[in-house]
Amino acid sequence: MAGNDTPDSRCPLCTGEGGTPVARTGNWRVVLAAEPDYPAFTRVIWSAHVAEMSELGAADRDELMRVVLAVEETQRAVLAPDKVNLACFGNVVPHLHWHVVPRWRDDRHFPEPVWGRAAGGRDAAVEARRARVAARLPSYLDALERRLAPGA
Amino acid sequence: MAGNDTPDSRCPLCTGEGGTPVARTGNWRVVLAAEPDYPAFTRVIWSAHVAEMSELGAADRDELMRVVLAVEETQRAVLAPDKVNLACFGNVVPHLHWHVVPRWRDDRHFPEPVWGRAAGGRDAAVEARRARVAARLPSYLDALERRLAPGA
Repeated sequence: MAGNDTPDSRCPLCTGEGGTPVARTGNWRVVLAAEPDYPAFTRVIWSAHVAEMSELGAADRDELMRVVLAVEETQRAVLAPDKVNLACFGNVVPHLHWHVVPRWRDDRHFPEPVWGRAAGGRDAAVEARRARVAARLPSYLDALERRLAPGA
Repeated sequence: MAGNDTPDSRCPLCTGEGGTPVARTGNWRVVLAAEPDYPAFTRVIWSAHVAEMSELGAADRDELMRVVLAVEETQRAVLAPDKVNLACFGNVVPHLHWHVVPRWRDDRHFPEPVWGRAAGGRDAAVEARRARVAARLPSYLDALERRLAPGA
């Protein structure tokens, strides 16, 4: 089934970037989110305004997942998280996008998803983890740009 | 990178089904979760005890995502949700599995993920929605079994 490819003037992912751009092609872009506790929180946003993965054809689904998993691989290689979380919701903004979130046992919400309840009593650990991830951010972004460069 | 394929005797997805089985091959199984507010909450569980999608080779990644998206397509076709939510966390149980959750504007948590904060003041609507989804469950499971049958 073909999606509705017409940009939606009320959609924040049609009218804005949705984060700091890291890489893009005509079909998708990868952006760094602005999540204070999660400096390496990354999103992969499909360019066309479609809501669901299954609105894409098979080749587009495969392409989008290859990018999502390239982000996961880069996070694992450069940041060595305890776990990577992948999610595709779109309840608030029904424009196809993936969240790729490196997680650590001492982050703000572990073991809950970052959309869940924050864990209590670990502010110092959370800040130390955030700072360590932030220090690796230039290396992460550099690796991501190289990994997602055209022809890479 | 090859994952650790040895079953882990402490892992609930190595030692148990993780839900009511709907379909399976040697590589994966699809189970109905037991989430009271979400009767059609479905999980796709990889058989081998690996933690991350990117521990799988390319063919296995593609196979798993084809199953996840076949579940999404079946939910859309039979249940007509307002949105489908896909997530792969594994923070609590680091054995590769996907959550495929049909969502409605009047469900317990919308527009939050089902792991987020419950919306207040809609008990009657939530119960009515739950009952409507439960009534469609036999049709959903039948469609899912047919869709995921060997050779289908």
